[in-house]
Amino acid sequence: MNDAMNEALGAYAAAWNETDAEKREHLLEKGFAPDGTYIDPAGKANGRQELSTMIAGFLDNRPGSTIEIDSEIDEHDGYARFTWVAKDADGNAFLPGMDFATFAPDGRVAQIVGFFGPIPPLGT
Amino acid sequence: MNDAMNEALGAYAAAWNETDAEKREHLLEKGFAPDGTYIDPAGKANGRQELSTMIAGFLDNRPGSTIEIDSEIDEHDGYARFTWVAKDADGNAFLPGMDFATFAPDGRVAQIVGFFGPIPPLGT
Repeated sequence: MNDAMNEALGAYAAAWNETDAEKREHLLEKGFAPDGTYIDPAGKANGRQELSTMIAGFLDNRPGSTIEIDSEIDEHDGYARFTWVAKDADGNAFLPGMDFATFAPDGRVAQIVGFFGPIPPLGT
Repeated sequence: MNDAMNEALGAYAAAWNETDAEKREHLLEKGFAPDGTYIDPAGKANGRQELSTMIAGFLDNRPGSTIEIDSEIDEHDGYARFTWVAKDADGNAFLPGMDFATFAPDGRVAQIVGFFGPIPPLGT
């Protein structure tokens, strides 16, 4: 991870916890490419504005919840993986997940593909 | 996972254990897009032929070793993640890993981004 990627990913992650639309969009300007894409099993967003709207929906539905990255960022060749956990307003984890990220040339996040839960063991 | 993706991924994985070049390339024809890409922390391959050559190098360096997928395939929207383990000729695991895969419209693997080991815990 170079510094630009690291800073971008930090701003991107912080945006998921920012209820103020203006502040959230400022974080996404720092961390997420204008035409970046986001997809997880529950939905997708094309571009920074759609992602901001998706985050607003998440935070509106679960007031007080937070999402934090809970692993190191494992990156090579501009591809990164990391885990995160979503917690409710009481701090109880309700969803663990993993993101796969790619980066634009300036270091901002270009694509997030999110997965929910751990990788399922064989036979499940 | 639809059937085409499932079959393609099975043929792709089998190719990693096939020392016979002709058989391996037949497996990659079934499972890997002609212009598919492969990258992991140790190297990269652009296209089916380069991947076959990379696999040959791996199997030449570690005679008798095998690689097998050891999780279910977790897929949504054409994006998949799964874990695998490389074992030596005596069956001892020497490298665990995780692949992130995307698929061509016909179901063949279009891109593999591989990672070695588990996702590193925070603070490591």
